[in-house]
Amino acid sequence: MIAAKDGPGMAERDGKTPVGEGARDILASLPVLAYGGDYNPEQWPRTVWREDMELMRRAGVNLVSVGVFSWSRLEPREGEYDFAWLDEVLDLLAANGIGAALATPTASPPPWFSLAHPDALPVRDDGTRLTHGSRDTYCVSAPPYREACVRVADALAERYAGHPALRLWHVHNEYGTWCHCGHTEAAFRRWLAERHGGLAALNEAWTTAHWGQIYSAWDQVNAPRATQYLANPAQLLDFRRFTSEEMRAAFREQKAVLRRRTPSVPVTTNFVLGDWVPVDHARWASDVDIVAIDHYPSGDGRAAEEQTAMSADLARSWAGGGKWLLIEQAANLVHVDGRALAKAPGRMRRHSLSHIARGSAGAMFFQWRAPRGGSERWHAAMLPHAGPDTRAFEEVVEFGAALPDLAETDGSRVDAEVAILADVEASWALSQPGMPSSDLSYEAAIAQAHRVAGRAGHTVDFAAPGADLSRYRLVLVPSLYLVSDAAAAGLASYVESGGHVLISCFSGIADEHTRIRTGGHPGAFRDLLGIRVTELRPLPEGERVVLDDGRVGTLWTEEVRLAGAEATGRYPSGEPAITRKPTGRGVARYLSTCLDDEGYAAEFAVAAAESGAAPVLPGLPEDVEVVRRTSAGAAWLFVLNHAGTERRISGVRGRDLLSGKAVDGELALPGGECAVVRLE
Amino acid sequence: MIAAKDGPGMAERDGKTPVGEGARDILASLPVLAYGGDYNPEQWPRTVWREDMELMRRAGVNLVSVGVFSWSRLEPREGEYDFAWLDEVLDLLAANGIGAALATPTASPPPWFSLAHPDALPVRDDGTRLTHGSRDTYCVSAPPYREACVRVADALAERYAGHPALRLWHVHNEYGTWCHCGHTEAAFRRWLAERHGGLAALNEAWTTAHWGQIYSAWDQVNAPRATQYLANPAQLLDFRRFTSEEMRAAFREQKAVLRRRTPSVPVTTNFVLGDWVPVDHARWASDVDIVAIDHYPSGDGRAAEEQTAMSADLARSWAGGGKWLLIEQAANLVHVDGRALAKAPGRMRRHSLSHIARGSAGAMFFQWRAPRGGSERWHAAMLPHAGPDTRAFEEVVEFGAALPDLAETDGSRVDAEVAILADVEASWALSQPGMPSSDLSYEAAIAQAHRVAGRAGHTVDFAAPGADLSRYRLVLVPSLYLVSDAAAAGLASYVESGGHVLISCFSGIADEHTRIRTGGHPGAFRDLLGIRVTELRPLPEGERVVLDDGRVGTLWTEEVRLAGAEATGRYPSGEPAITRKPTGRGVARYLSTCLDDEGYAAEFAVAAAESGAAPVLPGLPEDVEVVRRTSAGAAWLFVLNHAGTERRISGVRGRDLLSGKAVDGELALPGGECAVVRLE
Amino acid sequence: MIAAKDGPGMAERDGKTPVGEGARDILASLPVLAYGGDYNPEQWPRTVWREDMELMRRAGVNLVSVGVFSWSRLEPREGEYDFAWLDEVLDLLAANGIGAALATPTASPPPWFSLAHPDALPVRDDGTRLTHGSRDTYCVSAPPYREACVRVADALAERYAGHPALRLWHVHNEYGTWCHCGHTEAAFRRWLAERHGGLAALNEAWTTAHWGQIYSAWDQVNAPRATQYLANPAQLLDFRRFTSEEMRAAFREQKAVLRRRTPSVPVTTNFVLGDWVPVDHARWASDVDIVAIDHYPSGDGRAAEEQTAMSADLARSWAGGGKWLLIEQAANLVHVDGRALAKAPGRMRRHSLSHIARGSAGAMFFQWRAPRGGSERWHAAMLPHAGPDTRAFEEVVEFGAALPDLAETDGSRVDAEVAILADVEASWALSQPGMPSSDLSYEAAIAQAHRVAGRAGHTVDFAAPGADLSRYRLVLVPSLYLVSDAAAAGLASYVESGGHVLISCFSGIADEHTRIRTGGHPGAFRDLLGIRVTELRPLPEGERVVLDDGRVGTLWTEEVRLAGAEATGRYPSGEPAITRKPTGRGVARYLSTCLDDEGYAAEFAVAAAESGAAPVLPGLPEDVEVVRRTSAGAAWLFVLNHAGTERRISGVRGRDLLSGKAVDGELALPGGECAVVRLE
Repeated sequence: MIAAKDGPGMAERDGKTPVGEGARDILASLPVLAYGGDYNPEQWPRTVWREDMELMRRAGVNLVSVGVFSWSRLEPREGEYDFAWLDEVLDLLAANGIGAALATPTASPPPWFSLAHPDALPVRDDGTRLTHGSRDTYCVSAPPYREACVRVADALAERYAGHPALRLWHVHNEYGTWCHCGHTEAAFRRWLAERHGGLAALNEAWTTAHWGQIYSAWDQVNAPRATQYLANPAQLLDFRRFTSEEMRAAFREQKAVLRRRTPSVPVTTNFVLGDWVPVDHARWASDVDIVAIDHYPSGDGRAAEEQTAMSADLARSWAGGGKWLLIEQAANLVHVDGRALAKAPGRMRRHSLSHIARGSAGAMFFQWRAPRGGSERWHAAMLPHAGPDTRAFEEVVEFGAALPDLAETDGSRVDAEVAILADVEASWALSQPGMPSSDLSYEAAIAQAHRVAGRAGHTVDFAAPGADLSRYRLVLVPSLYLVSDAAAAGLASYVESGGHVLISCFSGIADEHTRIRTGGHPGAFRDLLGIRVTELRPLPEGERVVLDDGRVGTLWTEEVRLAGAEATGRYPSGEPAITRKPTGRGVARYLSTCLDDEGYAAEFAVAAAESGAAPVLPGLPEDVEVVRRTSAGAAWLFVLNHAGTERRISGVRGRDLLSGKAVDGELALPGGECAVVRLE
Repeated sequence: MIAAKDGPGMAERDGKTPVGEGARDILASLPVLAYGGDYNPEQWPRTVWREDMELMRRAGVNLVSVGVFSWSRLEPREGEYDFAWLDEVLDLLAANGIGAALATPTASPPPWFSLAHPDALPVRDDGTRLTHGSRDTYCVSAPPYREACVRVADALAERYAGHPALRLWHVHNEYGTWCHCGHTEAAFRRWLAERHGGLAALNEAWTTAHWGQIYSAWDQVNAPRATQYLANPAQLLDFRRFTSEEMRAAFREQKAVLRRRTPSVPVTTNFVLGDWVPVDHARWASDVDIVAIDHYPSGDGRAAEEQTAMSADLARSWAGGGKWLLIEQAANLVHVDGRALAKAPGRMRRHSLSHIARGSAGAMFFQWRAPRGGSERWHAAMLPHAGPDTRAFEEVVEFGAALPDLAETDGSRVDAEVAILADVEASWALSQPGMPSSDLSYEAAIAQAHRVAGRAGHTVDFAAPGADLSRYRLVLVPSLYLVSDAAAAGLASYVESGGHVLISCFSGIADEHTRIRTGGHPGAFRDLLGIRVTELRPLPEGERVVLDDGRVGTLWTEEVRLAGAEATGRYPSGEPAITRKPTGRGVARYLSTCLDDEGYAAEFAVAAAESGAAPVLPGLPEDVEVVRRTSAGAAWLFVLNHAGTERRISGVRGRDLLSGKAVDGELALPGGECAVVRLE
Repeated sequence: MIAAKDGPGMAERDGKTPVGEGARDILASLPVLAYGGDYNPEQWPRTVWREDMELMRRAGVNLVSVGVFSWSRLEPREGEYDFAWLDEVLDLLAANGIGAALATPTASPPPWFSLAHPDALPVRDDGTRLTHGSRDTYCVSAPPYREACVRVADALAERYAGHPALRLWHVHNEYGTWCHCGHTEAAFRRWLAERHGGLAALNEAWTTAHWGQIYSAWDQVNAPRATQYLANPAQLLDFRRFTSEEMRAAFREQKAVLRRRTPSVPVTTNFVLGDWVPVDHARWASDVDIVAIDHYPSGDGRAAEEQTAMSADLARSWAGGGKWLLIEQAANLVHVDGRALAKAPGRMRRHSLSHIARGSAGAMFFQWRAPRGGSERWHAAMLPHAGPDTRAFEEVVEFGAALPDLAETDGSRVDAEVAILADVEASWALSQPGMPSSDLSYEAAIAQAHRVAGRAGHTVDFAAPGADLSRYRLVLVPSLYLVSDAAAAGLASYVESGGHVLISCFSGIADEHTRIRTGGHPGAFRDLLGIRVTELRPLPEGERVVLDDGRVGTLWTEEVRLAGAEATGRYPSGEPAITRKPTGRGVARYLSTCLDDEGYAAEFAVAAAESGAAPVLPGLPEDVEVVRRTSAGAAWLFVLNHAGTERRISGVRGRDLLSGKAVDGELALPGGECAVVRLE
């Protein structure tokens, strides 16, 4: 479970939006397992709408996202609304038993809005003011934009409060824009004043004496702008934090309006993943009634499945272990390096089930019908350009028919014994310019930890620094470059109380202002680990180092001096590379190099074994994904064979909800096939 | 032959600028075979001019382009002309029997003009206004610029009407600039209003409902500008069309002025090739009295010769099969990836003869004398920096002496039995962002078709969609992504009447507004081909697929369902990859993958054989280029041996105009050599 | 020795700042061998200052650079100075026997300054005005900035004149910024008017007739700005010259103020190396009292040592052979391709000694203490983040203890028999767009010549075109693309008088306005070399050519016609590749291709032997660096073993000042070790 660092965790938040069993009141409007996609009738003539209804019914669609970019259709001129078409669409949906995740259309202001409010257009860091013509072209700090958002959200809520199709509010779309304009700077200064208290504290936190940028008045503080050379890293980091918080405030304003008009309809926004996104989802999660994510894997081959599993675990962790929703995925394409590769038969189903296994309350898609024109004309869709008589649509129909068989899993839990301690702020800090090695990637380190644990058959949660870790036997801490004193103390006390941690290189280096901790690395974890790193030694391009036990280190090494720990792996020079130190009732391990997957897996295996963390099933093939779901009285096993040929999984007894067949000890799954076994 | 899609074909255009036999009146002023280059005496002292005249005479130069960038010399201050130097230059040329292609200097406004009219400076899509200091720095939509162009063209025409040196008007230089300023936006809106009729039609054509950009007033419609994310593809496409048409209008204005002052002097502008050029030459061609092209191959090795042949075939096709002119090429360099590689001995002659063989009324160069300074100081020239005592200049002199021997070929025709259906609009649409695979290249597909047909000994025309194809036995249609209903119907009726077509993958996908045709690909050609493509399957990077007959597909595959066609090649899965369908009296073939050259050649061979299209000569070596020219009473064979060693060509009887020797059945050409045989 | 081309050489400059023996008065304030680094107490609390003093004393630090970026600390609001902290720091330094290189803080104006004088912020060539937030964000031509610089320098000098810690003025930091604003344009025009005399001369020098940019009034002349296509190369070149001269003028203004207040304190600024730097150090050198350089090698492996030796030879040459100072280097890191690689043990000492051997009056570092925050938080430091108990700091202490033993070498000379003729203007011209091959690199050519001569055991000076070369036996001229008539004549007369030159390809091509010399290349050296190059023939990517003697040419070839020279190496075609021509009492050699290191070494060996130039010691291993220092009564040999294992150097007798041991004929140096032997 993940808890927001600076705010209440999911479990402790305000009574209005409870989670877990108690959350059912607000989420009761949702289908048990949602199935559908973004629906854009405004792009098509009415004749097509009728066909849509028929085909949605054929496919078992029960929820569609409506109106995401429809502002210019809903309000063709300022204050002049045209709801007639949407009335008709929602009525049609209701008549066909399909729910609506009704969107506020604020992610794409109409062209007239940009002309009327040029100061609400976003500005790049070089001063270029952007213009309408795409989507997302607004400054989230601009008062005219914020006011218009609230106004249009309110108008929608007023109109459709009580409409039978309305099941979920889908605020905005993929919050994730940047601006460097005057409105933004003013808001940034207000945020900084609140965060730091005063200018002296800001100067200290940002180390502005470096390069002589000490501020003597607030109006000297600006958003990062095009400047002569490197920008201040603390300024960059705070600007990312501010941008996330500013968008969060904008979301909350819309949510408040919607909640007031429709108290029983849950409100969410779709989180989009990717290192370009300036949103700290872990800290936002407590603001949505249900965590909803868009997921588009970008990896070729098996990597797409591993990205899928990791995204689902992230979403579940953000949701505090409760219900969440995969609200967008691509039905039939994986985009890899500029190519839209078709998913092989069955792959859409495996991706969807991987999400559902890990807690998603359904599987939704962008989009229902492939558009004829527009920028995303070649995006995937449930109903492709070639129409219903296609393999892609047939798979959509087939999977839609199978989903209701899984309804009994609703409300069950996913339990993990292993957690990855992760924080997007560490990623933001580690990816700044001027670091010791451009090879280190926080995303890569996190992904490796998840991948290796997953291949070993473990289910993994993500935990935020500062969160309660007591439920986990083993916590992995990959390259947590930035960490606060409090979070470091929390980790130490977890170990003291019996926890096991495996910390990887370049962790605990900087404080929350991205200031380097002095006296020896990794400053925040020196005592916990019983080591003192006196020199960082990135490897030259392409070089690797073989440790005394044959494991291979890549990208990075360190000079480690033991101060209480023992060396469990050594560099060719004989210096310590991997260390272990028992502390209190627990154990703290350190990797001073980036082990390759094989090496990391070996360390993980030793650490997991010592900690007592066990895989879901022993002896699983690496290319079979297994997730256990449990509820008060029952348990289920989701088994996905990502291999191309049959795999046999032993120790499984029960009934497969998908095939209806009994499983008696050994489950034989053909290549690409899945089973959801209700365990005896 | 190529006909402009939206206007009259070359053959049908207005009486003032006829082509073919009737065109002789307007082109009578030109030398039979023009030889010369751009001449910039304004960069040199008078003493050099005398040497120029002597060396031009030595080289057989008979036409030079004068004044191309001379505006700041001709009009040093607004309205203050200095013609004295040009008077002297033209008099010198006339005295030496050399004609002038007199340029209007509008491609490079003087610095004073930029200062006086900053609103005539071009603006990038991010709002950056460019400044003078290079060439081409103007906004073609700016009224002050357009007025000044007409004024300076008129002043030149007034001054030099009737001058004995004046043989051709060379308007501007390489039209091909972009602007996104307010003047441009205003002109774009006017053009859009005319093209689409009204805002509702524009919204429909551009699918503006996608991402919520529906326009409710004309002032919301802008040129593509820096925006947050992807731009609207239909807007981008129309902006390219508009830019081409806007420059065409600017050309027409100058032409009108020149025609009025000098009714018997032909007017042209030099077309420059390259995918960055926003000019649709096929649609412009009817506006010039003679199609003139600049050609700079960029390929290493043999590719330069293949680019040369293709460019010449394009120019001839744009000219409706009539006379055209290679007005710029590099005498002694091929620029490849940042390196100016010297042409091997004889290569300049082969390139020149390849153009002349394919219809050029001469061979001209940029430039006569290599400049001492300026941005193009290292560009090639007939007279290099090292002076006349150089191999490069000796070859220029030698070739100039040989050219008159070819005069008898003047006015003869090039006939082709094979055509490539090509449209730059398809290229524009296919190269937009967001396509299913960034690997697909329209240019590469067109070049492959031309290269393969050429290596098989065929002469190839280019035809525009919608043109009369009845003269061809076989029409190749490589990846014609965008095509109108009318053009698709034209192709179908061509096959119905007995034509043969070979259509390649990703053709017929989109309509003229780049909207995807639904119901199965390739929407426009589904019935013609008797297939239905239900899924596009780009290949991952570097992957290839081997068909059942051993042919190799690259980059792209499709799921093809037969609907009347037979499969003549299959994927490893057994699904159809290549299809054939007889329709009416003709045959339509489809390639659903990008075959490599060998595979495409095999399909071409089968299609050509079935269609009855025959090579110029049977059994030609691949590295020998042969073109046949015919007139009422005679025929000639241009034979260019691009190999490094001797090649023997049989079946040739006649007299070689270059060597003067008789050819009696077998022509033995040493490596790099050429012959022009008047056939018996 | 290097002499400024356009001004007096170091030896001839004004009496106030003499060099050599006479210079001692002004440099007397400096420690004999300076040791220390940039010191930024303003980034730390006072408690740290005390520790600094103790650790500096432990390390033998005797000079620190103070206040480099402290403007915003010194003057928190306009005209309101706060000197108290600096008083305390300087008093502390003085009390601890440590000198101060006191910086004027003008490289980083305070944020309040940018807000008060937005017209002093720099503007990119596309018009983007940069903002504060980094360092170096100013327009050096802006009057408010220039006035403020003089004011703050004067305030500092007034305050600290006579302070016992003050030993050196460190003006600004690494001059090297660009601006294209209106202030800059106005200054550029004034500079051009002075350089060229009039607009007609400017038009002629810049060949503005090319592409029609003839200026008819001065206000049409601008700084290079974003324009449509390629900019004028002569304009670009003059703008680089202007920028260098403009910053030089700014330096002189500060120097004048400081000299007036503190006549006996030397004034310098730290030169930073790199091809991005718009400063012509050779021409600036006569303005500083002591040449000071920052050196950060970027090469992996041995290349870092070769870059170090070359930079030190450059600095000594700029200093006219006199005393100079390595004022910044990295204590423990080499930055290579985005990675901060730790220096192996002993490497810092070898780098430092390489500089001292070649004439540096000490070894200084950026920086004393690694900073906690700021853009350069990961830059190297004498005292790393991990503190004094580190290998890095131990090496700093050890080397500080050894330095005083070398004091006796102070004032001794380095003599060279070989010089490289080098000019940054040739580099600027050769790196412009539009050259015949983007493969040619002036920096690479210079580095090869220095590397090859160094590996052969020779000590090398750099000489400016036009300098007196009579002291050298052999002058290497690598790819000196641009050269004036006068400098070319100087080289010819050097050969006439008995000198030997080895000129490499693409030399002597252009005049000082980067206009190509006509009539055959290399225009400036045609007669000297007795050849005429009639065609430049860059090699295609990756191609090489093997000469008749087996040597390998890369990147470039030429068609060379002999006109007095003999061919000493030939291309496979039999054409000359390498030539030799005796002229007067000397010999001129030419390489028309870029030989690889082995080939260049062979030619160098032949040329050196014929010229009589001898290595410092015969038979040296390639990886051992040896420099001889001599004074009136003594000589020393600096010997640095860059190999990983022991090397034995014979013919050395004397006493090693570092180890104190006698050397009797053979010096055995372990891998990575050094010796400084006072020769018997």
